[in-house]
Amino acid sequence: MAEERKDLDDLKQILRYGSDEELRDFLSLLHPADLADLIEQAEPEERDRIFRLLPPEKASRVLPEIEDWYRNEIIKRLSHNQIVEIVDEMPSDEAVDLVSELPPEEARRVLEEIEKEDSEKVRRLLRYPEESAGGIMQVELVSVRANATVSEVIEEIRKKREKVQDLHYVFVVDEDNRLVGVLDLSRLLLAEPDQRVSELMKTDVIKVRVDMDQEQVAEMFRRYNLFTLPVVDREGRLVGRITADDVFEVMADEADEDFLLMAGAGEAELEERNIFKSAWARLPWLTITFVGEMVTGAVIGFYHQLLQQLIVLTTFLPIIMAMGGNVGNQSATIVVRGLATGKIDLRKVGKLILHQSLIGFLMGMIIGVVLVVFTQFRYKSTIYASTIYVSTIYVGLVVGLSICLVMTIAALVGTALPLIFKRFKVDPAIATAPFISTFCDALSTLIYLGMANLLLIKLAL
Amino acid sequence: MAEERKDLDDLKQILRYGSDEELRDFLSLLHPADLADLIEQAEPEERDRIFRLLPPEKASRVLPEIEDWYRNEIIKRLSHNQIVEIVDEMPSDEAVDLVSELPPEEARRVLEEIEKEDSEKVRRLLRYPEESAGGIMQVELVSVRANATVSEVIEEIRKKREKVQDLHYVFVVDEDNRLVGVLDLSRLLLAEPDQRVSELMKTDVIKVRVDMDQEQVAEMFRRYNLFTLPVVDREGRLVGRITADDVFEVMADEADEDFLLMAGAGEAELEERNIFKSAWARLPWLTITFVGEMVTGAVIGFYHQLLQQLIVLTTFLPIIMAMGGNVGNQSATIVVRGLATGKIDLRKVGKLILHQSLIGFLMGMIIGVVLVVFTQFRYKSTIYASTIYVSTIYVGLVVGLSICLVMTIAALVGTALPLIFKRFKVDPAIATAPFISTFCDALSTLIYLGMANLLLIKLAL
Repeated sequence: MAEERKDLDDLKQILRYGSDEELRDFLSLLHPADLADLIEQAEPEERDRIFRLLPPEKASRVLPEIEDWYRNEIIKRLSHNQIVEIVDEMPSDEAVDLVSELPPEEARRVLEEIEKEDSEKVRRLLRYPEESAGGIMQVELVSVRANATVSEVIEEIRKKREKVQDLHYVFVVDEDNRLVGVLDLSRLLLAEPDQRVSELMKTDVIKVRVDMDQEQVAEMFRRYNLFTLPVVDREGRLVGRITADDVFEVMADEADEDFLLMAGAGEAELEERNIFKSAWARLPWLTITFVGEMVTGAVIGFYHQLLQQLIVLTTFLPIIMAMGGNVGNQSATIVVRGLATGKIDLRKVGKLILHQSLIGFLMGMIIGVVLVVFTQFRYKSTIYASTIYVSTIYVGLVVGLSICLVMTIAALVGTALPLIFKRFKVDPAIATAPFISTFCDALSTLIYLGMANLLLIKLAL
Repeated sequence: MAEERKDLDDLKQILRYGSDEELRDFLSLLHPADLADLIEQAEPEERDRIFRLLPPEKASRVLPEIEDWYRNEIIKRLSHNQIVEIVDEMPSDEAVDLVSELPPEEARRVLEEIEKEDSEKVRRLLRYPEESAGGIMQVELVSVRANATVSEVIEEIRKKREKVQDLHYVFVVDEDNRLVGVLDLSRLLLAEPDQRVSELMKTDVIKVRVDMDQEQVAEMFRRYNLFTLPVVDREGRLVGRITADDVFEVMADEADEDFLLMAGAGEAELEERNIFKSAWARLPWLTITFVGEMVTGAVIGFYHQLLQQLIVLTTFLPIIMAMGGNVGNQSATIVVRGLATGKIDLRKVGKLILHQSLIGFLMGMIIGVVLVVFTQFRYKSTIYASTIYVSTIYVGLVVGLSICLVMTIAALVGTALPLIFKRFKVDPAIATAPFISTFCDALSTLIYLGMANLLLIKLAL
């Protein structure tokens, strides 16, 4: 942090008083990720100057590290030639990301002007959905035949070294480019020059199909402790590779998505700068809440006579709704997270629901007892302005009993709902905060007021 | 999933009818991560048989992949000799994790019996906090001097190949073991045997101190697209390395932690099987909610005369509380997540708060207008059982105005609170669901009833 601060001060100084030469030197010393941060802090004119001086190779590493919003601003101000030079330097996965952000006409022109080989790669990658294995893989890799010798493999690596970054594994393919093995560079390093790849390679290769969802790809990396994962097409032919660094981004993005979904905020909100769009993205949640709370309001309306007779009951509405919402949301979060990380065994769903309900019941008992006791002290002498006579102890009992019931049912609903959503292939993360809370509000109110009406009025305790 | 199902069926068949020989063959074909899953599904006696037949080397790879709860159950049933053999085969980071789960006396005995070299490594690692760079690193690595030749480096790799897994980089150190460079295996592969390391190595090495928090370590990996990260002590001496696969676990664990914290569930709840412990872990949140909602209840109590005179006001309590809680929680989640992923610029806090408040205001306006209109239709002819005369339009206006104000302030509070927590070095994730909702409930109720009292009673509109 402190270092970043200092870098920023230095940059500002040089931008103001320094020559192009000095600025160029300063930029060359920074890591692309750090430079990206500084660029985000700079003014548009300053950014123009920085990108004018940055060699295309460095610019090609800096741009992918800049936040979407800033990146789009910057791309708009880059000249056509600058973009062509930068895209030319990028590995295929980054090039695709950049090209897909350009206006269609500009994208077409850029693809025409970059090296033919590169442009074919980019065109091919553009066909895959952004969040699939194909959308995050790069096509730059080293592949050899099983009958190649170690020295031939080394020659192949030498030829491709400019194009292929982060090379830790060589893939082995047959005559149809079907993946048959993988070879660790350290094995290659220790082998004799005339040894064959077939003697050295590992044949039980973990691979993914090009259409696998990126979240599952990340789960594969985590499960099998991978560094590089080959991607194959429907016929098993090698089409690309995904490296661990791509997966860090995927994991962070997928977690972001779930967090926001669970709070009922829009998916893109972390980077959205337009308040109208943000508000719009949250509108579905607000609508759910609106409808749900109108139902809750109607329940209250239905029991308005009861409340008017015994206004003290309204003072417990907030705690009953809040506890139901909390418990429901806790259970839902545990289930959603457990589903996302594979920690929930779908064969033991019944046990899970029972388990969570018991926790809800247990906590409900505790809070219930506390409430019964609390009521006796708080409303010992006065139950304000009641138009009927009811003993404080019965009010306490109704409140305590309701909260215990509400918390048990909320835990049950909170556990079951995400599982049901999952079953119907809806993202279970949707079944959390606003949805569950709203649902539990209506349910809690109904249980509480229904029970109060039954016990205090009908049975006239 | 389908494949796992089939593997499980096969395993059950072999466990029931197969010979030890057949079981051994079956086990040898499975990837450790897949085998770990199957073992979790097996009965305790079946697990005993599996671990009796599993070679220690394979067992050492399977155990770390098993969920904590099951792993502890399994370790309890392993013999002392089995544990010693398994620990002996583990890389240092896994060995530490296993040893730290043993009862102290057993841990001491195991450390005495494994190879002396290994036991020293483990003892050294046991000193670091579990969630620090030292707690997740392994000490197995290859380091060489800058004046070594390529062929000497290859010899060093050959010597250590048994001990060092996933070797993609060789570290370069000076005579005091201080890290001075790093060397990619692919460069080594393309170099001449008599070239010196100093000609090939990269000297601007990204490294971390042994006491860095694991969350920051993960952030370094993501930021700088790393595969391996060297760990140094206070004096810059190389003490270990962290690899990308360790970081996947860290990222998943840290996300889990935040998710649960944000829902007010206990940190360990994903794997907790004891309902009393789960309930206990959630108790702090319930207590916050309890106190907060009692305050809300007191606010309602304070205005009980108003409510009794105009009971229709109670039907809007749920929507006003829910909308406040939702919006507050949305803003809080965005801030917490933005802080966790470094997307929030702490120099632009004021702008962020203003931005979120404006979103709250905008949505508040929309919902407010909808509510005003809704009120006119819903309560056109009857405002039930009012003891004072108030026009429906004024009730609607009070409700609409309140919700707009509540949503603006909730967004402001939801944005500011996590930032304040962060400032005082409290985990900002705490400032979400139960905390914010409860806070907003009290605030919303006060604003709503206060405004109703002022406008409808005091000013007697």
